[in-house]
Order: sequence, then structure tokens, then C-alpha cells
Amino acid sequence: MAAINRRADPSRLSINTATVREQWDLGQIADACALHDIRGISPWRDQVAKFGLRDAARAIEFNGLTVTGYCRGGMFPAESAKDRLAVREDNRRAVDEALEIHAQCLVLVVGGLPGGSKDIASAREQVRDGIADLLDYSRPRGMPLAIEPLHPMYAADRACVNTMRHANDLCDELGDDGLGIALDLYHTWWDPELEAQITRAGRKRLLAFHICDWLVPTADMLLDRGMMGDGVIEISRWRQAVEATGYSGFHEVEIFSASNWWKRDPHEVLHTCKHRHAECC
Amino acid sequence: MAAINRRADPSRLSINTATVREQWDLGQIADACALHDIRGISPWRDQVAKFGLRDAARAIEFNGLTVTGYCRGGMFPAESAKDRLAVREDNRRAVDEALEIHAQCLVLVVGGLPGGSKDIASAREQVRDGIADLLDYSRPRGMPLAIEPLHPMYAADRACVNTMRHANDLCDELGDDGLGIALDLYHTWWDPELEAQITRAGRKRLLAFHICDWLVPTADMLLDRGMMGDGVIEISRWRQAVEATGYSGFHEVEIFSASNWWKRDPHEVLHTCKHRHAECC
Repeated sequence: MAAINRRADPSRLSINTATVREQWDLGQIADACALHDIRGISPWRDQVAKFGLRDAARAIEFNGLTVTGYCRGGMFPAESAKDRLAVREDNRRAVDEALEIHAQCLVLVVGGLPGGSKDIASAREQVRDGIADLLDYSRPRGMPLAIEPLHPMYAADRACVNTMRHANDLCDELGDDGLGIALDLYHTWWDPELEAQITRAGRKRLLAFHICDWLVPTADMLLDRGMMGDGVIEISRWRQAVEATGYSGFHEVEIFSASNWWKRDPHEVLHTCKHRHAECC
Repeated sequence: MAAINRRADPSRLSINTATVREQWDLGQIADACALHDIRGISPWRDQVAKFGLRDAARAIEFNGLTVTGYCRGGMFPAESAKDRLAVREDNRRAVDEALEIHAQCLVLVVGGLPGGSKDIASAREQVRDGIADLLDYSRPRGMPLAIEPLHPMYAADRACVNTMRHANDLCDELGDDGLGIALDLYHTWWDPELEAQITRAGRKRLLAFHICDWLVPTADMLLDRGMMGDGVIEISRWRQAVEATGYSGFHEVEIFSASNWWKRDPHEVLHTCKHRHAECC
């Protein structure tokens, strides 16, 4: 077992670009990360597309940033075979893009119920089959896929994989080669099985570690995430549990915050991320 | 195993009084249930207090209604020993009131993190200890306690028991005598373990069964529950799974709906509950 740092290593901080997406384009975010001595970045596809894939890759490389994940592939369940084919092609493009920007993994938000369906068991089968199919493409190219369990409140419309247990079960079934988990505390902090399932996942499966905080009250189900320290998640405890497995990767800050952080000076946001990462994580 | 009805038995419909709380007082709700030939009712403490406990008991008895649960006891985690004592006294009063109105069980919403705390493991210990203590009072008086797992989105501020597995674990630990579970599909429909944990709970533990629907999108985390059939929950499937255990109790409709059902003519609400119960459950 690795030695556990009581404080988070500042060099492990990464910024998910959604955190300042309302203020800056991808080039500005990459430059600002370097300016604030933040070493990791995790870009979203729409921001990359807007900035241009090659330019994005160059901006990231120029600033010496590690790409701790690419957001996102997935959204597997579909109403028709034709839709499933379109999803398949889109996910393969996401793998190609992730390779182009040298991402450590492609994060999978697996999708919820396809239009009109109430059959979550069947949606979960489509997810399993979709990941299996994408692995045929991603494995030979060397791009790991990271299943991200989302909070159960997103089970219907965003992701029907909602616990670490389920993500671990999928890894068991599909094989660990090129497959793992993106653990986001916002989605999983409530789970009484979290510690056991982190241990079960282990270093091999933990491909990414996302942090932010759960606010009380939470005003909006999607766009009211908190800065580390402003909510109720024991971030430091869970960071230590993750690193106790041997995980030595980044701690990626992903904050959707329509009424607060997205309205602030983005330099203040990054400065606060750095400060809170050092103080609370 | 009991024979399973493909359609819900209309005589098993019960109305949780929160469903029309904005329109009617408890006496009006009891009268209206009888008028609409609804046989069960589940009142909230604040509505009972406002109407008067004895008057409430009389109104319910006069209309020949079964009290399928009393909402609610719980809220165990507290910041101080003094607060815990106050909670204990309040919960004992809730047991007394439940006895007075001949409720089938006292529903427990167990509480979340006490003010300022981030320690959900400790909150869960307080819940276990609080239930154990309340059982000393409720068991000799013959009032069953029903632990209600709430959706994980309420883990911080309402209930840190969020899965049927956790509720079953508590029953294992504290003993089944006078203790069981109130299963609410709104809170548990997303859980991949739901079927297995319903079976594990079995007829003995299933003390109440609550229904409504999960809307997509859900506009508000607390007050945007859907009428059966308007959302994505496979209510009929789960009702059959519950009855496959031998459960022959009521199906209690509990809808918090600030922007829709609470604004409608309450007779229309009850009529719709009856209709949808017959059609979709």
C-alpha cells in the first residue's frame, strides 16, 4: 500500500473545462491552467470542437498539461438500430479525438432510458453491449474507457449506471483490459458501499478521480455543484481512500454552477480551486 | 407464493394526505376518500396536529378508512445530546399518535447530516441507535416502525438510509420484531438491486408500499413528483414484485407537486389517482 498524504499533492490538481466553460474557450483555459500552475486539464468534446481539435491539442501540449480524461463518450441506449449505429460512430470518433489530444482515458457517461422507455434493465443491457462494442475499437488503439457512475437522480436521463458496484460489475463482466472507472465523489459520496467498492476497484480500475462538493440545499439538480469545502462531502477522506489503492493520478475539479462559479472571474475560480484543493482535499 | 394480479386491486388504493395537502384539511381528505371509494389513508403529523388528534381519529374511523401508515417519525441524527433527547420524546409522541389513529405502522424518515457535519457514517450510526431506542418504546405498545429508504439525493438533508439493502441490513441488525420497511418506488426505482432486496425483505418486512412517478425532466428535487403513468417508473412491474412476496397491503399514493397537482381541484386529483391506479399500476 502506498504512503498516504494527509494533504492533497498540489501537482495532482486538474481542471475539467466545464468548470469555466461559460467564461473562456479551450485555448484560454489551457493558458490559464499553466498561468496558475495547474498541471492537468480535462476537456469536453463540444469545447474541443468549437476550438478545433488540432488547435486544442496544440494549446494543451504548448502548456505542458496532462489530459486527465476526455469528456465524454457513452449515451449508449437508443430507440432504434439506426440510432445505435449513429451512437457507435460518434463514440468511435470520440476515441479518435481522445487519442489526438493524448487523453489518459475517455470518460463514459453511459446514457439513460431511450425516448419513451421505462425499461431500465434493458437500457442497462444496451449499455453493457455498447461498451463491449466500443472496446473492440478502443482496445487495439490503446485508449482506456472509464465508466463514470452518475448520481441516481440522473438514472432516467443521463446515466443508468449509478453506483461503483454496478461499474465494478461491468468491469468484471467485460474485462479490465482497457476498461476502468472514473470515480466522481459528487455522484457517489452518499453510497454506504463506497469504501468497499473503491477497494474492489483498486488501482487498476481507477482511471480518473473527480471532485467537487454537494451543497445543502442543492438548488438545481444539474447546475448547482459546489466548490470543494462548501458542501458536505468528506473529500479528503475519500481522496485518501482512493490513494490507498495505489492511485497516483490527478484530482479533477468539475463544477457545474450556473448561479455562482460560472458567473465569476475565471481567474478567481481557478485560484479558488487551487486554494481549496490544498485546504480541503 | 401468492397469485399475482396483473392489475392493481382497486380496494388497495390509499391516499397519503400530502397529495392534496394544499387544498384540503384532514377532515376534508378523509371525507373525500370515502366519497371516491378510496379505502386507505396515510396522514401526516402536521395535518393531524392542525385538525386535532381526536378529531382526526374520528374522521378516519367515521369514513371506515384503513390508516396505512403515519407520516412520520425519525430525524434521528442530532448535534447535541439535548437535541437527541428532544428527538426521542418527539418520536415517542409520534408512536402514541400512530396508536391513537390505529395506523398500521409509523413511517420513519431517518434524517440526514446534523448541522455542520460531513460525517455520514456517524449519522448512520445515530440512525441505527435511534431506531433501536425507539423500538424499546414501540415494541411493547405494538406499533410497527417502517424504515423508508429515501432517494440518495436526500442523503444530506432528509435521510441517510437510501437503499433497500441498507434498510434490510438495519432490520437484520435490530431484529424484525416490530420493525420493517416502507418501500417507496420514487426513491428506489433506479436501484439495480431493487428486485433482489424486495425479495430479501419479504412479506414480513414490507409494511407499506408507496407509489408515484419519476418525471423527466424533474424540475424540483422535492416538489415535482409525478402522477402514476406520467413518468418512467415501471410501477406495475414493481407492484407485482412486491405482491409476489405475499404482500397484500395497500398501494399508497404520495405526490408532492407544487406546480401541478397541488394546484388542481382535489376531487380531480383523487379521481386521477383512482383512474391511474387502475390503468398503470
